[in-house]
Amino acid sequence: MPGTIVALSTPPGVSGIAVIRISGDDAFTIVDKVFSGKTKLSPAQSHTIHYGTIYDNETPVDTVLASVFHSPNSYTSEDTVEISCHGGYAITGEIIRVLIANGAVAAEAGEFTKRAFLNGKLDLTQAEAVADIIHSESTAGALTAVRQLLGGFKRRLSELRSQLADIAALLELELDFADEDIEITNKSLIIKKIMEAETYCRLLSESYHSAEVLRNGYYIGLAGYPNSGKSTLFNSLLGKIRAIVSPKPGTTRDYIEDSLIIGGIVVRLIDTAGIRNSEDEIEVEGIKLAHSALKQCNMILIVNDCYSDIRQSDMLLMNIKDINPDTKVILLQNKIDKFEGTFESIVPDEIYISAKTGLGLDLLKEQIKTEAESSSVRINDVLVNQRQARLLGNAADLLHTAGDALNQGVENELVSLDIRNAVDSLGEISGERFSEEVLNNIFGRFCIGK
Amino acid sequence: MPGTIVALSTPPGVSGIAVIRISGDDAFTIVDKVFSGKTKLSPAQSHTIHYGTIYDNETPVDTVLASVFHSPNSYTSEDTVEISCHGGYAITGEIIRVLIANGAVAAEAGEFTKRAFLNGKLDLTQAEAVADIIHSESTAGALTAVRQLLGGFKRRLSELRSQLADIAALLELELDFADEDIEITNKSLIIKKIMEAETYCRLLSESYHSAEVLRNGYYIGLAGYPNSGKSTLFNSLLGKIRAIVSPKPGTTRDYIEDSLIIGGIVVRLIDTAGIRNSEDEIEVEGIKLAHSALKQCNMILIVNDCYSDIRQSDMLLMNIKDINPDTKVILLQNKIDKFEGTFESIVPDEIYISAKTGLGLDLLKEQIKTEAESSSVRINDVLVNQRQARLLGNAADLLHTAGDALNQGVENELVSLDIRNAVDSLGEISGERFSEEVLNNIFGRFCIGK
Repeated sequence: MPGTIVALSTPPGVSGIAVIRISGDDAFTIVDKVFSGKTKLSPAQSHTIHYGTIYDNETPVDTVLASVFHSPNSYTSEDTVEISCHGGYAITGEIIRVLIANGAVAAEAGEFTKRAFLNGKLDLTQAEAVADIIHSESTAGALTAVRQLLGGFKRRLSELRSQLADIAALLELELDFADEDIEITNKSLIIKKIMEAETYCRLLSESYHSAEVLRNGYYIGLAGYPNSGKSTLFNSLLGKIRAIVSPKPGTTRDYIEDSLIIGGIVVRLIDTAGIRNSEDEIEVEGIKLAHSALKQCNMILIVNDCYSDIRQSDMLLMNIKDINPDTKVILLQNKIDKFEGTFESIVPDEIYISAKTGLGLDLLKEQIKTEAESSSVRINDVLVNQRQARLLGNAADLLHTAGDALNQGVENELVSLDIRNAVDSLGEISGERFSEEVLNNIFGRFCIGK
Repeated sequence: MPGTIVALSTPPGVSGIAVIRISGDDAFTIVDKVFSGKTKLSPAQSHTIHYGTIYDNETPVDTVLASVFHSPNSYTSEDTVEISCHGGYAITGEIIRVLIANGAVAAEAGEFTKRAFLNGKLDLTQAEAVADIIHSESTAGALTAVRQLLGGFKRRLSELRSQLADIAALLELELDFADEDIEITNKSLIIKKIMEAETYCRLLSESYHSAEVLRNGYYIGLAGYPNSGKSTLFNSLLGKIRAIVSPKPGTTRDYIEDSLIIGGIVVRLIDTAGIRNSEDEIEVEGIKLAHSALKQCNMILIVNDCYSDIRQSDMLLMNIKDINPDTKVILLQNKIDKFEGTFESIVPDEIYISAKTGLGLDLLKEQIKTEAESSSVRINDVLVNQRQARLLGNAADLLHTAGDALNQGVENELVSLDIRNAVDSLGEISGERFSEEVLNNIFGRFCIGK
């Protein structure tokens, strides 16, 4: 591996501790040039910690703890030193400068994890899990990623690939005996196995959407006629004042987003402009924006001012359901604290609330929790991302073709080719096969120092 | 020490690594309840690192490295575990939650360092140096604080205190023999030693101002008539567009501050409103603000538009020098690129520049560097803070009184009392004597996790 790399591995900022990581063939040599402790680090045992001072020539730069990791027992599998120094901007920058002056090079984004992958410490599903853990705002997402890091997905992929490779080999073997008209394989059993594998790949591929909910959050849009109390609801759900509330219709022109965590899942609330025919140019833009924002949502809450007219939003509800057929839409009868008539629920899933007094909000939150959880079902502890979903879909398609072909008596040779291509597609997921471009895409999204 | 404390010791944020520190009698017991590695941590050798997984009951929370420090060989001197986990918001929060659920308590700001002090690991000058290192934006300030942490100030204080205590003892001894009229001490030598100590304390106490420059930066205010090019100069010095530049006089109503680093020192530039008689109410407020901002500065740059009138700011220069007699004031003849007359420098320290083309800015920066460096002379590697300056000043005053009294033949008993009070005052600096209030003041300014 060319070069010994160095980077700050903790966030920049004021803190008690910061950790600077240095990895590569010369890690010990370089640190030993600037570190003065009881002993040198090169001969020190792996997984031991040494107190000492970093010097820039004669000038003491900081007192630090240096953790020693001998190859291959480190994150990257290379010789590694982790320097735990004082936090803050000045000292960390100075130590990195001194290490670079002594032969280290600044690490690129994700370069430590890329080296870990290239050295066989992690497969790509695990490397991608690392990125998901770090970027996760929700506990549910992070914990699923941790299970993926622990190798759940890696093992299942590897089992599936070897099963499929066995089937392909069997089909090819039969081919060798084709002249002798011997049928070695139990065709229907093989078709069944191919179909099972297809279903598994398809399900996982489709779990990409629920993985996105875990990764980026469950989006809820608030819609309704002006002055129905959307912004008040927005603030009540967040438990703080975020949207500007005013009695003047059309106050929310742009849309506002904020998030809260319900049941370990990040729920993102989007407060849109009131929907109506407006002649105000800026407001028309806001309403257009509202419609396009709602399209991205997992759930839409239509807020109706029941005090003014309990059925005034029914048409709006129909329209929004029409435009967003796959989205859960709930009608909220707001301002119930002022309402004095008799209730007659004609719309399913109607909830009576008062955004102002908080009445009915617990029920609403419970419903949001149920919906968010069912939208983020975790299949087998895998947090499928776009790249993996594409490759899984591709494998499923190939297996589907193979199953059909075998059923229709197509030659084993062609069937086996499709299966082997599916195996290759799955191999790209774990990185048994990879291109530099794929690696750059994956690791470029990491932060520096990981 | 009551309770085992836990906190995130690295800054919150997205990063490769985060470090959670847990310290106290139950540190190993608590971590062993949730950590699963090859071995338990309690029996593990000090200063060793262990790979494993943190569990919340059956749920894996993260794969981590746990560093073991046995009392007294840790930062706090207590049993300590540092858990190096994945960065990000979700996982760090979850691990801390699990540790607290298993018996740890959330640490208060500075509590680790406070315990280190109470357990005799650091004196107060070192604890205060830790805070200075962490908060320092400038290398020069941080490196001086590191030398203080390494014990420079601590040693000198301790030497001084024991010298003064010896003198006091000698004076008291003489007192015992007073009846016998024996003069044990060489009075003039003692007076000389007391005066030397006084001078040292006084000098250090006064170095508070240069320490503040190292700690908070060297402040430069830009002043001048409207449209003289202050904001253009501000941007040129910073090398970026920060102040809104417009040809309309009075654009900068509030004052704008930004900083750059020159020669390892943080230089803070303050761009003020143009100074003139204005009838615009908001602008008048801005000009008042400008005058009070300039009072806080170490240096004032008066920007004159020499193209419009080379001597138009001379009166302003006089006025500002009058109001700020202790501040370095430099007249900048700006827009020199447009100027076509002949130069005749009548004001000392006048510099000819063009903020627009960059002409003369190198010379200006050189001058700033020289001034900033001479304002931040580091006395004996000590970064004196307000608390220390007060105690040093107090000790100097007491020593002055003692020296005078001895000279005037005042009784040894009274002289010795002053000297012992000075010793006590110096003892408060290092924390040989302390009150809970002083500790709360010092450690309350730390961040959580240190």
